[in-house]
Amino acid sequence: MSNDRPGEFDLIKRYFAPLAKDPGSLGLTDDAAVLSPRAGFDLVLTKDVLAAGVHFFPHDAPEAIAAKALRVNLSDLAAKGARPRGYLMGLALHADWTTDWLDRFCKGLAADQAAFEVTLLGGDTIRSDNGLQISITALGEVKKDKAVRRSGAKPGDVLFVSGTIGDAAAGLKARLDGEFCRSMKLTESEERHIHERYLLPRPRTCLSDPLSRYANAAMDISDGLFADGKHMAIASSVDLAIDLDRVPLSGALRRVNSNNRLAWLDCLNGGDDYEILASVPEEKSGVFVQEAADSDCPVTRIGRVERGRGALTVYEANSPVNLKAEAGFSHF
Amino acid sequence: MSNDRPGEFDLIKRYFAPLAKDPGSLGLTDDAAVLSPRAGFDLVLTKDVLAAGVHFFPHDAPEAIAAKALRVNLSDLAAKGARPRGYLMGLALHADWTTDWLDRFCKGLAADQAAFEVTLLGGDTIRSDNGLQISITALGEVKKDKAVRRSGAKPGDVLFVSGTIGDAAAGLKARLDGEFCRSMKLTESEERHIHERYLLPRPRTCLSDPLSRYANAAMDISDGLFADGKHMAIASSVDLAIDLDRVPLSGALRRVNSNNRLAWLDCLNGGDDYEILASVPEEKSGVFVQEAADSDCPVTRIGRVERGRGALTVYEANSPVNLKAEAGFSHF
Repeated sequence: MSNDRPGEFDLIKRYFAPLAKDPGSLGLTDDAAVLSPRAGFDLVLTKDVLAAGVHFFPHDAPEAIAAKALRVNLSDLAAKGARPRGYLMGLALHADWTTDWLDRFCKGLAADQAAFEVTLLGGDTIRSDNGLQISITALGEVKKDKAVRRSGAKPGDVLFVSGTIGDAAAGLKARLDGEFCRSMKLTESEERHIHERYLLPRPRTCLSDPLSRYANAAMDISDGLFADGKHMAIASSVDLAIDLDRVPLSGALRRVNSNNRLAWLDCLNGGDDYEILASVPEEKSGVFVQEAADSDCPVTRIGRVERGRGALTVYEANSPVNLKAEAGFSHF
Repeated sequence: MSNDRPGEFDLIKRYFAPLAKDPGSLGLTDDAAVLSPRAGFDLVLTKDVLAAGVHFFPHDAPEAIAAKALRVNLSDLAAKGARPRGYLMGLALHADWTTDWLDRFCKGLAADQAAFEVTLLGGDTIRSDNGLQISITALGEVKKDKAVRRSGAKPGDVLFVSGTIGDAAAGLKARLDGEFCRSMKLTESEERHIHERYLLPRPRTCLSDPLSRYANAAMDISDGLFADGKHMAIASSVDLAIDLDRVPLSGALRRVNSNNRLAWLDCLNGGDDYEILASVPEEKSGVFVQEAADSDCPVTRIGRVERGRGALTVYEANSPVNLKAEAGFSHF
């Protein structure tokens, strides 16, 4: 374990400057970055802070921690219809960091920069006696006035989600409870799947363009499908109706459902999905589905938007489910 | 002490939404902000992370902690010639935070937003078991291609600093050593002055315009006058010469100098000044000084830029001072 901890300037030169490829980063030789959106585009900015013990486990692989910190921000950009452009990173190193750890952390960033076409623009590194904390501000570009908000859902819209729901929350349950996978009778590959979905969000940047073209409203699902649906309903001053039978599930989540319905509902609303919830006008929903599929980001119709004042109702076989009574979810 | 800790949405509504006055913030109802620089302007972005026990004392007044976190970022913008426009804030609340504490923290932000014409655009709040941490990404605007870099200093330029140097470092010494003020024979008002300079940086946003019009290079002094001078010399591939006799001093620092030269040198290079070091072509230095004074931000000529390769030399009565031998400063 090498631990010849370099000073701030050496840190920048050795670890961070190689990640800074946009001319606006000034090669990280300055205290600031300079940039402008391309003509005809707006900038979209988002910020998420991740802390050890809250958003990841301190002993997770450094590459995975880096990827998660970046990806949760890219997920927000995608939901707004924006293509990622760059990010600033505030890194509070934990007391026992090593150069090996930082090397792996930066390799994780580099791999994701290549995968998602994004580059480091600037930031700040501090050392504190506290646990690791990563604060990323990500910037994306969207055509002028075409950013998608969570407040734009309209009665008559169709609700869609990308990917499958509940996997990450099941992965977290498995991390916290060594018996979870066995009691749910998951296969080895299902177990791997939920672990991976918890560890590594998959930001749906491939949906940016279809969202900005067709969606009235969108947001990424980080708090949980029902909780975030409720957030969209309130922000848009409409009611949302979700058909439980339509929510797309992985094999692992289908198995959880068949073994323990309560655990399954918990997973569906557990959050950390980083899938997109989108509200699309009925007449555009066909082309939206098609373009999403063409972008390798299939979406599933899960419900509809109705006149109302911020309620979310979940239906099963056309009857309302009482989530509060059945699963103890608040606010339902 | 009230401690009815609200949930995230209540936090945003009660504390942060009133700080978000730019339409691009979307009233903090979304996961992202949307904005673009005005036509003909570039955006300048900077990020500083502050942690309790590293950059401030945990029991400092919440208003002062908020102001410091914002101001160190505004100082970076000013040094680049940019006028502040907005900021995103990542706030990791300490384990024992209270609503009273947060109320005062936000009052501090509100006061500085009014003073510096800047507004909250977005952010993220988390709760961790660690100490308070604040990560701010600040955005400013500067005329296209007119951002001032630290790498632009040219042989023949005149070096200027704003304000006075060493006060904040003296204030920190006084915080750490209860005998400091008495042993330096500071008056009560001098003692107040250095405490205040440590607690509350004064970002020189009033210098943004003169800097962007006249300076070849600029940076704010956060690491220390000599250390940051050296950074500018290296970034610009020139040598810098600073006349110690010309460095502007407050009454307090003059008294420290007359009592203990070593402590004085330590303060001069102690950092946390958040004054501006600027390199201005000789022929523009007259109008730069005049416009700075007109903006209530007087600057003092402290040295010159010479051909070279990144050395900084400090002179006193025209002879070089050996800072390494005399004060133990590394890299000199």
